Amino acid sequence: MFQLQRYFLPAEDWKDQYVIIRGDDAHHITRVMRNRIDDQLICNHPDSESAICRITEIENGIVIAKIEKWLDEDVELPVDVTIAQGLPKGDKLDLVIQKGTELGARSFIPFKADRSVVKWDKKKEEKKLDRYRKIVKEASEQSHRTEIPLIHPSMNLVELIKESANYQVKIFAYEEEAKGTDYLSFSKVVKQFHESDRVLVCIGPEGGFSLDEVETLKENDFIPVRLGPRILRTETAPLYVLASISYHLEELRC
Amino acid sequence: MFQLQRYFLPAEDWKDQYVIIRGDDAHHITRVMRNRIDDQLICNHPDSESAICRITEIENGIVIAKIEKWLDEDVELPVDVTIAQGLPKGDKLDLVIQKGTELGARSFIPFKADRSVVKWDKKKEEKKLDRYRKIVKEASEQSHRTEIPLIHPSMNLVELIKESANYQVKIFAYEEEAKGTDYLSFSKVVKQFHESDRVLVCIGPEGGFSLDEVETLKENDFIPVRLGPRILRTETAPLYVLASISYHLEELRC
Repeated sequence: MFQLQRYFLPAEDWKDQYVIIRGDDAHHITRVMRNRIDDQLICNHPDSESAICRITEIENGIVIAKIEKWLDEDVELPVDVTIAQGLPKGDKLDLVIQKGTELGARSFIPFKADRSVVKWDKKKEEKKLDRYRKIVKEASEQSHRTEIPLIHPSMNLVELIKESANYQVKIFAYEEEAKGTDYLSFSKVVKQFHESDRVLVCIGPEGGFSLDEVETLKENDFIPVRLGPRILRTETAPLYVLASISYHLEELRC
Repeated sequence: MFQLQRYFLPAEDWKDQYVIIRGDDAHHITRVMRNRIDDQLICNHPDSESAICRITEIENGIVIAKIEKWLDEDVELPVDVTIAQGLPKGDKLDLVIQKGTELGARSFIPFKADRSVVKWDKKKEEKKLDRYRKIVKEASEQSHRTEIPLIHPSMNLVELIKESANYQVKIFAYEEEAKGTDYLSFSKVVKQFHESDRVLVCIGPEGGFSLDEVETLKENDFIPVRLGPRILRTETAPLYVLASISYHLEELRC
Protein backbone atom coordinates (compact mmCIF):
# COMPACT_ATOMS: atom_id res chain seq x y z
CA MET A 1 0.00 0.00 0.00
CA PHE A 2 1.84 3.02 -1.38
CA GLN A 3 5.14 1.42 -0.53
CA LEU A 4 8.25 1.34 -2.67
CA GLN A 5 8.99 -1.88 -4.52
CA ARG A 6 12.16 -3.65 -3.44
CA TYR A 7 14.78 -5.36 -5.62
CA PHE A 8 17.71 -7.59 -4.61
CA LEU A 9 20.68 -6.74 -6.84
CA PRO A 10 23.99 -8.61 -7.19
CA ALA A 11 27.10 -6.88 -5.74
CA GLU A 12 28.65 -6.23 -9.17
CA ASP A 13 25.70 -4.04 -10.21
CA TRP A 14 26.40 -1.45 -7.49
CA LYS A 15 28.67 1.32 -8.86
CA ASP A 16 29.51 4.26 -6.58
CA GLN A 17 26.36 6.36 -6.53
CA TYR A 18 24.41 4.23 -9.02
CA VAL A 19 22.82 0.80 -9.36
CA ILE A 20 22.26 -1.05 -12.63
CA ILE A 21 19.11 -3.16 -12.83
CA ARG A 22 18.80 -5.82 -15.54
CA GLY A 23 16.75 -8.79 -16.70
CA ASP A 24 13.56 -9.78 -14.85
CA ASP A 25 13.92 -6.95 -12.33
CA ALA A 26 14.21 -4.30 -15.07
CA HIS A 27 11.22 -5.87 -16.79
CA HIS A 28 9.26 -5.77 -13.53
CA ILE A 29 10.12 -2.08 -13.00
CA THR A 30 9.19 -0.92 -16.50
CA ARG A 31 6.37 -3.28 -17.43
CA VAL A 32 4.68 -4.45 -14.22
CA MET A 33 5.19 -1.40 -11.98
CA ARG A 34 5.26 0.90 -15.04
CA ASN A 35 7.87 3.08 -13.36
CA ARG A 36 9.33 6.04 -15.23
CA ILE A 37 12.40 8.27 -14.84
CA ASP A 38 12.35 10.06 -11.44
CA ASP A 39 10.34 7.28 -9.76
CA GLN A 40 11.78 5.79 -6.57
CA LEU A 41 12.46 2.19 -5.52
CA ILE A 42 14.43 0.31 -2.86
CA CYS A 43 17.52 -1.69 -3.81
CA ASN A 44 19.05 -4.34 -1.55
CA HIS A 45 22.75 -5.17 -1.57
CA PRO A 46 23.75 -8.79 -0.80
CA ASP A 47 25.47 -7.52 2.37
CA SER A 48 21.99 -6.75 3.81
CA GLU A 49 22.34 -3.03 3.12
CA SER A 50 19.51 -1.28 1.35
CA ALA A 51 18.94 2.14 -0.18
CA ILE A 52 16.21 4.28 -1.65
CA CYS A 53 17.15 4.93 -5.29
CA ARG A 54 15.70 7.17 -7.98
CA ILE A 55 15.50 6.09 -11.63
CA THR A 56 17.69 8.25 -13.89
CA GLU A 57 17.74 6.22 -17.09
CA ILE A 58 15.75 3.46 -18.81
CA GLU A 59 17.28 2.08 -21.99
CA ASN A 60 17.52 -1.23 -23.84
CA GLY A 61 15.88 -3.16 -21.02
CA ILE A 62 18.29 -1.75 -18.44
CA VAL A 63 17.31 0.61 -15.63
CA ILE A 64 19.84 2.88 -13.94
CA ALA A 65 19.01 4.44 -10.58
CA LYS A 66 20.85 6.87 -8.33
CA ILE A 67 21.35 5.96 -4.67
CA GLU A 68 19.59 8.66 -2.67
CA LYS A 69 19.48 7.39 0.90
CA TRP A 70 20.92 4.38 2.70
CA LEU A 71 18.33 2.79 4.97
CA ASP A 72 18.86 1.62 8.50
CA GLU A 73 16.59 -1.41 8.52
CA ASP A 74 16.41 -4.12 11.14
CA VAL A 75 13.89 -6.64 9.95
CA GLU A 76 15.77 -9.94 10.23
CA LEU A 77 14.98 -12.38 13.04
CA PRO A 78 17.60 -12.13 15.83
CA VAL A 79 18.29 -15.87 15.49
CA ASP A 80 19.13 -17.71 12.28
CA VAL A 81 16.36 -20.28 11.73
CA THR A 82 16.60 -23.13 9.20
CA ILE A 83 13.49 -25.16 8.41
CA ALA A 84 14.20 -28.79 7.42
CA GLN A 85 10.83 -29.77 5.99
CA GLY A 86 9.95 -33.42 5.39
CA LEU A 87 8.99 -33.51 1.69
CA PRO A 88 5.21 -33.04 1.67
CA LYS A 89 2.68 -33.86 -1.05
CA GLY A 90 1.58 -31.49 -3.82
CA ASP A 91 2.74 -27.89 -3.70
CA LYS A 92 2.79 -27.58 0.09
CA LEU A 93 6.53 -26.92 0.11
CA ASP A 94 5.85 -23.79 -2.01
CA LEU A 95 3.58 -22.57 0.76
CA VAL A 96 6.11 -23.35 3.52
CA ILE A 97 8.87 -21.53 1.65
CA GLN A 98 6.79 -18.49 0.74
CA LYS A 99 5.23 -18.04 4.18
CA GLY A 100 8.43 -19.12 5.96
CA THR A 101 10.28 -16.32 4.15
CA GLU A 102 7.69 -13.74 5.22
CA LEU A 103 8.01 -15.02 8.79
CA GLY A 104 11.80 -14.65 8.82
CA ALA A 105 13.39 -18.08 8.10
CA ARG A 106 17.05 -17.82 7.03
CA SER A 107 17.21 -21.08 5.06
CA PHE A 108 15.28 -24.18 4.02
CA ILE A 109 16.31 -27.83 3.66
CA PRO A 110 13.99 -30.18 1.72
CA PHE A 111 14.24 -33.30 3.91
CA LYS A 112 13.72 -36.75 2.37
CA ALA A 113 11.89 -38.38 5.28
CA ASP A 114 10.97 -42.07 5.65
CA ARG A 115 7.28 -41.30 5.23
CA SER A 116 7.63 -38.75 2.40
CA VAL A 117 5.43 -40.08 -0.39
CA VAL A 118 7.04 -37.77 -2.96
CA LYS A 119 10.38 -38.86 -4.41
CA TRP A 120 12.73 -36.43 -6.18
CA ASP A 121 15.09 -37.53 -8.93
CA LYS A 122 17.99 -35.28 -9.96
CA LYS A 123 16.12 -33.59 -12.79
CA LYS A 124 12.98 -32.97 -10.74
CA GLU A 125 15.09 -31.62 -7.88
CA GLU A 126 16.87 -29.07 -10.09
CA LYS A 127 13.56 -27.75 -11.39
CA LYS A 128 12.12 -27.62 -7.88
CA LEU A 129 15.11 -25.79 -6.41
CA ASP A 130 14.98 -23.19 -9.20
CA ARG A 131 11.33 -22.65 -8.42
CA TYR A 132 11.96 -22.29 -4.68
CA ARG A 133 14.77 -19.79 -5.28
CA LYS A 134 12.30 -17.64 -7.23
CA ILE A 135 9.74 -17.93 -4.46
CA VAL A 136 12.18 -16.82 -1.72
CA LYS A 137 13.35 -13.86 -3.81
CA GLU A 138 9.82 -12.65 -4.49
CA ALA A 139 8.67 -13.24 -0.92
CA SER A 140 11.74 -11.40 0.43
CA GLU A 141 10.98 -8.39 -1.76
CA GLN A 142 7.33 -8.41 -0.79
CA SER A 143 7.96 -8.73 2.96
CA HIS A 144 10.81 -6.16 2.99
CA ARG A 145 13.47 -8.65 4.06
CA THR A 146 17.06 -7.48 3.74
CA GLU A 147 18.34 -11.04 3.16
CA ILE A 148 17.07 -13.69 0.77
CA PRO A 149 16.81 -17.10 2.48
CA LEU A 150 19.00 -19.91 1.18
CA ILE A 151 17.52 -23.08 -0.37
CA HIS A 152 19.72 -26.10 0.35
CA PRO A 153 19.76 -29.19 -1.88
CA SER A 154 17.59 -31.98 -0.49
CA MET A 155 19.04 -34.12 2.31
CA ASN A 156 18.31 -37.56 3.73
CA LEU A 157 18.53 -38.20 7.47
CA VAL A 158 22.28 -38.99 7.45
CA GLU A 159 23.04 -35.77 5.55
CA LEU A 160 20.75 -33.77 7.82
CA ILE A 161 22.49 -35.09 10.94
CA LYS A 162 25.86 -34.14 9.43
CA GLU A 163 24.55 -30.64 8.59
CA SER A 164 23.17 -30.29 12.13
CA ALA A 165 26.71 -30.01 13.54
CA ASN A 166 26.61 -26.37 12.35
CA TYR A 167 23.74 -25.41 14.66
CA GLN A 168 23.62 -24.41 18.33
CA VAL A 169 19.96 -25.45 18.78
CA LYS A 170 18.24 -28.42 17.15
CA ILE A 171 14.56 -29.21 17.59
CA PHE A 172 11.91 -31.35 15.96
CA ALA A 173 8.15 -30.95 16.04
CA TYR A 174 6.83 -34.18 17.48
CA GLU A 175 3.09 -34.60 17.56
CA GLU A 176 3.27 -37.21 20.32
CA GLU A 177 4.31 -34.25 22.51
CA ALA A 178 1.00 -32.55 21.72
CA LYS A 179 -1.01 -35.58 22.76
CA GLY A 180 0.53 -36.40 26.14
CA THR A 181 0.39 -34.51 29.41
CA ASP A 182 4.15 -34.82 29.89
CA TYR A 183 5.71 -32.69 27.19
CA LEU A 184 8.42 -30.12 26.59
CA SER A 185 6.90 -26.73 25.93
CA PHE A 186 8.37 -24.94 22.91
CA SER A 187 8.86 -21.83 25.05
CA LYS A 188 11.40 -23.64 27.26
CA VAL A 189 13.64 -23.94 24.21
CA VAL A 190 13.02 -20.43 22.86
CA LYS A 191 13.86 -18.92 26.25
CA GLN A 192 17.36 -20.41 25.94
CA PHE A 193 18.14 -18.90 22.54
CA HIS A 194 21.16 -16.59 22.38
CA GLU A 195 21.47 -13.76 19.87
CA SER A 196 22.61 -15.04 16.46
CA ASP A 197 22.18 -18.71 17.44
CA ARG A 198 21.72 -21.01 14.49
CA VAL A 199 18.50 -22.96 15.06
CA LEU A 200 17.60 -26.07 13.04
CA VAL A 201 13.91 -27.02 13.06
CA CYS A 202 12.97 -30.42 11.65
CA ILE A 203 9.36 -31.08 10.62
CA GLY A 204 7.99 -34.48 9.56
CA PRO A 205 5.95 -35.04 6.37
CA GLU A 206 2.20 -35.87 6.38
CA GLY A 207 2.66 -39.23 8.13
CA GLY A 208 4.98 -37.77 10.79
CA PHE A 209 8.43 -39.12 11.64
CA SER A 210 9.16 -42.86 11.63
CA LEU A 211 10.22 -44.36 14.96
CA ASP A 212 13.73 -44.81 13.53
CA GLU A 213 13.91 -41.13 12.67
CA VAL A 214 12.68 -40.11 16.13
CA GLU A 215 15.36 -42.27 17.72
CA THR A 216 18.15 -40.96 15.50
CA LEU A 217 17.08 -37.33 15.98
CA LYS A 218 17.01 -37.74 19.76
CA GLU A 219 20.42 -39.47 19.77
CA ASN A 220 21.79 -36.46 17.91
CA ASP A 221 20.49 -33.91 20.42
CA PHE A 222 17.39 -32.79 18.54
CA ILE A 223 14.86 -31.76 21.19
CA PRO A 224 11.24 -32.87 20.62
CA VAL A 225 8.83 -29.96 21.16
CA ARG A 226 5.11 -29.44 21.36
CA LEU A 227 3.53 -26.66 19.27
CA GLY A 228 0.31 -26.12 21.20
CA PRO A 229 -2.16 -28.88 22.06
CA ARG A 230 -3.77 -29.20 18.63
CA ILE A 231 -2.42 -31.44 15.88
CA LEU A 232 -0.96 -29.25 13.12
CA ARG A 233 -0.60 -30.27 9.48
CA THR A 234 2.98 -30.67 8.25
CA GLU A 235 2.88 -27.33 6.41
CA THR A 236 1.38 -25.45 9.38
CA ALA A 237 4.00 -26.54 11.94
CA PRO A 238 6.93 -24.48 10.53
CA LEU A 239 4.70 -21.37 10.38
CA TYR A 240 3.78 -21.85 14.06
CA VAL A 241 7.49 -22.20 14.92
CA LEU A 242 8.54 -19.06 13.04
CA ALA A 243 5.61 -16.91 14.21
CA SER A 244 6.27 -17.94 17.83
CA ILE A 245 10.00 -17.18 17.59
CA SER A 246 9.20 -13.78 16.05
CA TYR A 247 6.59 -13.10 18.71
CA HIS A 248 8.93 -14.07 21.56
CA LEU A 249 12.07 -12.29 20.35
CA GLU A 250 10.64 -9.34 18.43
CA GLU A 251 7.34 -8.52 20.12
CA LEU A 252 7.52 -9.92 23.63
CA ARG A 253 11.25 -9.72 24.40
CA CYS A 254 10.84 -11.57 27.69
CA MET B 1 -0.07 -41.34 12.55
CA PHE B 2 -1.84 -44.33 14.10
CA GLN B 3 -4.43 -42.05 15.58
CA LEU B 4 -8.17 -42.58 15.68
CA GLN B 5 -10.24 -40.68 13.19
CA ARG B 6 -12.59 -38.11 14.70
CA TYR B 7 -16.20 -37.31 13.72
CA PHE B 8 -18.44 -34.45 14.83
CA LEU B 9 -21.99 -35.79 15.29
CA PRO B 10 -25.23 -33.84 15.86
CA ALA B 11 -26.76 -34.09 19.36
CA GLU B 12 -29.78 -36.10 18.16
CA ASP B 13 -27.54 -38.96 17.02
CA TRP B 14 -26.29 -39.67 20.56
CA LYS B 15 -28.46 -42.35 22.22
CA ASP B 16 -27.51 -43.56 25.71
CA GLN B 17 -24.52 -45.80 25.13
CA TYR B 18 -24.56 -45.59 21.34
CA VAL B 19 -23.95 -43.11 18.53
CA ILE B 20 -25.50 -43.28 15.07
CA ILE B 21 -23.31 -42.11 12.20
CA ARG B 22 -24.89 -41.26 8.86
CA GLY B 23 -24.26 -39.66 5.48
CA ASP B 24 -20.79 -38.43 4.55
CA ASP B 25 -19.31 -39.49 7.88
CA ALA B 26 -20.59 -43.08 7.51
CA HIS B 27 -19.26 -43.09 3.96
CA HIS B 28 -15.88 -41.87 5.21
CA ILE B 29 -15.75 -44.58 7.88
CA THR B 30 -16.66 -47.48 5.59
CA ARG B 31 -15.17 -46.41 2.26
CA VAL B 32 -12.25 -44.07 2.99
CA MET B 33 -11.01 -45.45 6.32
CA ARG B 34 -12.33 -48.94 5.43
CA ASN B 35 -13.28 -49.51 9.06
CA ARG B 36 -15.05 -52.73 10.07
CA ILE B 37 -17.03 -53.91 13.09
CA ASP B 38 -14.91 -53.73 16.27
CA ASP B 39 -12.76 -50.86 14.95
CA GLN B 40 -12.51 -47.75 17.13
CA LEU B 41 -13.05 -44.07 16.38
CA ILE B 42 -13.57 -40.81 18.28
CA CYS B 43 -16.95 -39.07 18.26
CA ASN B 44 -17.44 -35.43 19.27
CA HIS B 45 -20.67 -34.15 20.79
CA PRO B 46 -21.66 -30.52 20.01
CA ASP B 47 -21.22 -29.74 23.74
CA SER B 48 -17.43 -30.21 23.26
CA GLU B 49 -17.51 -33.67 24.86
CA SER B 50 -15.80 -36.50 23.04
CA ALA B 51 -15.63 -40.27 23.43
CA ILE B 52 -13.80 -43.28 22.05
CA CYS B 53 -16.42 -45.50 20.42
CA ARG B 54 -16.31 -49.00 18.95
CA ILE B 55 -18.24 -49.94 15.80
CA THR B 56 -20.93 -52.55 16.50
CA GLU B 57 -22.98 -52.43 13.32
CA ILE B 58 -22.66 -51.28 9.71
CA GLU B 59 -25.83 -51.43 7.65
CA ASN B 60 -27.54 -49.52 4.83
CA GLY B 61 -24.97 -46.76 4.92
CA ILE B 62 -25.39 -46.25 8.67
CA VAL B 63 -22.72 -47.00 11.26
CA ILE B 64 -23.57 -47.68 14.90
CA ALA B 65 -20.85 -47.45 17.53
CA LYS B 66 -20.83 -48.08 21.28
CA ILE B 67 -19.44 -45.38 23.56
CA GLU B 68 -16.48 -46.95 25.37
CA LYS B 69 -14.70 -44.09 27.11
CA TRP B 70 -15.40 -40.40 27.55
CA LEU B 71 -12.28 -38.32 26.96
CA ASP B 72 -11.02 -35.46 29.04
CA GLU B 73 -9.57 -33.24 26.34
CA ASP B 74 -8.43 -29.66 26.67
CA VAL B 75 -7.34 -28.50 23.25
CA GLU B 76 -9.29 -25.26 22.77
CA LEU B 77 -7.53 -21.89 23.00
CA PRO B 78 -8.20 -20.26 26.41
CA VAL B 79 -9.54 -17.17 24.63
CA ASP B 80 -12.22 -17.09 21.97
CA VAL B 81 -10.63 -15.65 18.81
CA THR B 82 -12.62 -14.49 15.78
CA ILE B 83 -10.77 -13.67 12.56
CA ALA B 84 -12.48 -11.00 10.41
CA GLN B 85 -10.57 -11.44 7.16
CA GLY B 86 -10.74 -8.80 4.42
CA LEU B 87 -11.91 -10.77 1.36
CA PRO B 88 -8.69 -11.78 -0.41
CA LYS B 89 -8.16 -12.87 -4.01
CA GLY B 90 -8.32 -16.45 -5.28
CA ASP B 91 -8.65 -19.25 -2.73
CA LYS B 92 -6.65 -17.58 0.02
CA LEU B 93 -9.66 -17.54 2.34
CA ASP B 94 -9.70 -21.37 2.14
CA LEU B 95 -6.14 -21.34 3.46
CA VAL B 96 -6.92 -18.87 6.26
CA ILE B 97 -9.92 -20.92 7.38
CA GLN B 98 -8.18 -24.31 7.21
CA LYS B 99 -4.97 -23.18 8.95
CA GLY B 100 -6.87 -20.85 11.30
CA THR B 101 -8.93 -23.83 12.47
CA GLU B 102 -5.80 -25.89 13.15
CA LEU B 103 -4.39 -22.94 15.08
CA GLY B 104 -7.47 -22.63 17.29
CA ALA B 105 -9.72 -19.84 15.92
CA ARG B 106 -13.30 -20.01 17.24
CA SER B 107 -14.98 -18.23 14.33
CA PHE B 108 -14.43 -16.45 11.03
CA ILE B 109 -16.06 -13.38 9.47
CA PRO B 110 -15.54 -12.74 5.74
CA PHE B 111 -15.09 -8.96 5.76
CA LYS B 112 -16.02 -6.91 2.68
CA ALA B 113 -13.21 -4.35 2.86
CA ASP B 114 -12.84 -1.20 0.76
CA ARG B 115 -9.87 -2.64 -1.09
CA SER B 116 -11.26 -6.17 -1.54
CA VAL B 117 -11.12 -6.83 -5.27
CA VAL B 118 -13.45 -9.84 -4.99
CA LYS B 119 -17.16 -9.14 -4.78
CA TRP B 120 -19.66 -11.72 -3.48
CA ASP B 121 -23.27 -11.80 -4.67
CA LYS B 122 -25.86 -13.75 -2.69
CA LYS B 123 -25.52 -16.94 -4.73
CA LYS B 124 -21.74 -16.92 -4.68
CA GLU B 125 -21.77 -16.26 -0.94
CA GLU B 126 -24.01 -19.26 -0.20
CA LYS B 127 -21.72 -21.57 -2.16
CA LYS B 128 -18.64 -20.11 -0.48
CA LEU B 129 -20.07 -20.42 3.04
CA ASP B 130 -21.00 -24.06 2.40
CA ARG B 131 -17.47 -24.71 1.26
CA TYR B 132 -15.96 -23.00 4.33
CA ARG B 133 -18.22 -24.99 6.68
CA LYS B 134 -16.86 -28.18 5.14
CA ILE B 135 -13.29 -26.94 5.51
CA VAL B 136 -13.71 -26.08 9.23
CA LYS B 137 -15.31 -29.47 9.94
CA GLU B 138 -12.53 -31.42 8.22
CA ALA B 139 -9.78 -29.28 9.75
CA SER B 140 -11.35 -29.65 13.23
CA GLU B 141 -11.38 -33.43 12.87
CA GLN B 142 -7.83 -33.52 11.59
CA SER B 143 -6.43 -31.23 14.29
CA HIS B 144 -8.38 -32.93 17.14
CA ARG B 145 -10.42 -29.85 18.00
CA THR B 146 -13.40 -30.43 20.26
CA GLU B 147 -15.34 -27.51 18.75
CA ILE B 148 -15.97 -26.69 15.12
CA PRO B 149 -15.40 -22.98 14.39
CA LEU B 150 -18.34 -20.90 13.24
CA ILE B 151 -18.45 -19.26 9.80
CA HIS B 152 -20.39 -15.98 9.91
CA PRO B 153 -22.09 -14.49 6.84
CA SER B 154 -19.98 -11.77 5.21
CA MET B 155 -20.06 -8.30 6.78
CA ASN B 156 -19.25 -4.79 5.63
CA LEU B 157 -17.57 -2.31 7.96
CA VAL B 158 -20.83 -1.07 9.52
CA GLU B 159 -21.95 -4.61 10.28
CA LEU B 160 -18.51 -5.53 11.63
CA ILE B 161 -18.53 -2.54 14.00
CA LYS B 162 -21.99 -3.58 15.21
CA GLU B 163 -20.78 -7.18 15.76
CA SER B 164 -17.71 -5.89 17.60
CA ALA B 165 -19.87 -4.84 20.56
CA ASN B 166 -19.82 -8.54 21.56
CA TYR B 167 -16.05 -8.63 22.09
CA GLN B 168 -13.85 -7.63 25.04
CA VAL B 169 -10.74 -7.10 22.88
CA LYS B 170 -10.63 -5.69 19.35
CA ILE B 171 -7.47 -5.41 17.30
CA PHE B 172 -6.45 -4.84 13.70
CA ALA B 173 -3.22 -5.74 11.98
CA TYR B 174 -1.88 -2.50 10.62
CA GLU B 175 1.23 -2.69 8.49
CA GLU B 176 2.10 0.94 9.13
CA GLU B 177 2.87 -0.28 12.67
CA ALA B 178 5.50 -2.66 11.25
CA LYS B 179 7.23 0.13 9.37
CA GLY B 180 7.60 2.77 12.06
CA THR B 181 9.73 2.83 15.16
CA ASP B 182 6.81 3.95 17.30
CA TYR B 183 4.44 1.00 17.37
CA LEU B 184 2.27 -1.04 19.71
CA SER B 185 3.75 -4.49 20.19
CA PHE B 186 1.20 -7.28 19.82
CA SER B 187 2.40 -8.76 23.11
CA LYS B 188 1.17 -5.69 25.04
CA VAL B 189 -2.35 -6.63 23.98
CA VAL B 190 -1.98 -10.39 24.53
CA LYS B 191 -0.67 -9.81 28.06
CA GLN B 192 -3.97 -8.15 28.93
CA PHE B 193 -6.18 -11.03 27.81
CA HIS B 194 -8.41 -12.57 30.47
CA GLU B 195 -9.54 -16.19 30.36
CA SER B 196 -12.50 -16.66 28.00
CA ASP B 197 -12.21 -13.14 26.57
CA ARG B 198 -13.75 -12.76 23.15
CA VAL B 199 -11.08 -11.34 20.84
CA LEU B 200 -11.89 -9.89 17.42
CA VAL B 201 -8.96 -9.66 15.00
CA CYS B 202 -9.48 -7.66 11.82
CA ILE B 203 -7.12 -8.21 8.86
CA GLY B 204 -7.08 -6.10 5.69
CA PRO B 205 -7.15 -7.56 2.16
CA GLU B 206 -4.15 -7.46 -0.22
CA GLY B 207 -4.15 -3.67 -0.50
CA GLY B 208 -4.46 -3.18 3.27
CA PHE B 209 -7.08 -1.03 4.98
CA SER B 210 -8.30 2.22 3.46
CA LEU B 211 -7.66 5.35 5.50
CA ASP B 212 -11.41 5.58 6.16
CA GLU B 213 -11.42 2.06 7.56
CA VAL B 214 -8.41 2.76 9.77
CA GLU B 215 -10.14 5.83 11.17
CA THR B 216 -13.44 4.03 11.81
CA LEU B 217 -11.71 1.05 13.41
CA LYS B 218 -9.72 3.30 15.73
CA GLU B 219 -12.83 5.33 16.65
CA ASN B 220 -14.48 2.06 17.65
CA ASP B 221 -11.66 0.97 19.95
CA PHE B 222 -9.90 -1.42 17.62
CA ILE B 223 -6.21 -1.37 18.60
CA PRO B 224 -3.67 -1.30 15.73
CA VAL B 225 -0.92 -3.88 16.32
CA ARG B 226 2.38 -4.81 14.76
CA LEU B 227 3.02 -8.47 13.93
CA GLY B 228 6.81 -8.49 13.80
CA PRO B 229 8.89 -6.09 11.69
CA ARG B 230 8.36 -7.81 8.32
CA ILE B 231 5.42 -7.11 6.04
CA LEU B 232 3.09 -10.14 6.04
CA ARG B 233 0.72 -11.06 3.25
CA THR B 234 -3.00 -10.78 4.09
CA GLU B 235 -3.34 -14.57 4.49
CA THR B 236 -0.22 -14.89 6.67
CA ALA B 237 -1.23 -12.23 9.24
CA PRO B 238 -4.08 -14.24 10.88
CA LEU B 239 -1.80 -17.29 11.18
CA TYR B 240 0.83 -15.15 12.96
CA VAL B 241 -1.86 -13.83 15.33
CA LEU B 242 -3.22 -17.28 16.20
CA ALA B 243 0.18 -18.97 16.54
CA SER B 244 1.38 -16.15 18.82
CA ILE B 245 -1.73 -16.32 21.01
CA SER B 246 -1.34 -20.10 21.29
CA TYR B 247 2.36 -19.73 22.05
CA HIS B 248 1.75 -17.10 24.72
CA LEU B 249 -1.23 -18.70 26.47
CA GLU B 250 -0.58 -22.41 25.92
CA GLU B 251 3.21 -22.77 25.74
CA LEU B 252 4.68 -19.76 27.52
CA ARG B 253 2.02 -18.94 30.10
CA CYS B 254 3.77 -15.75 31.17
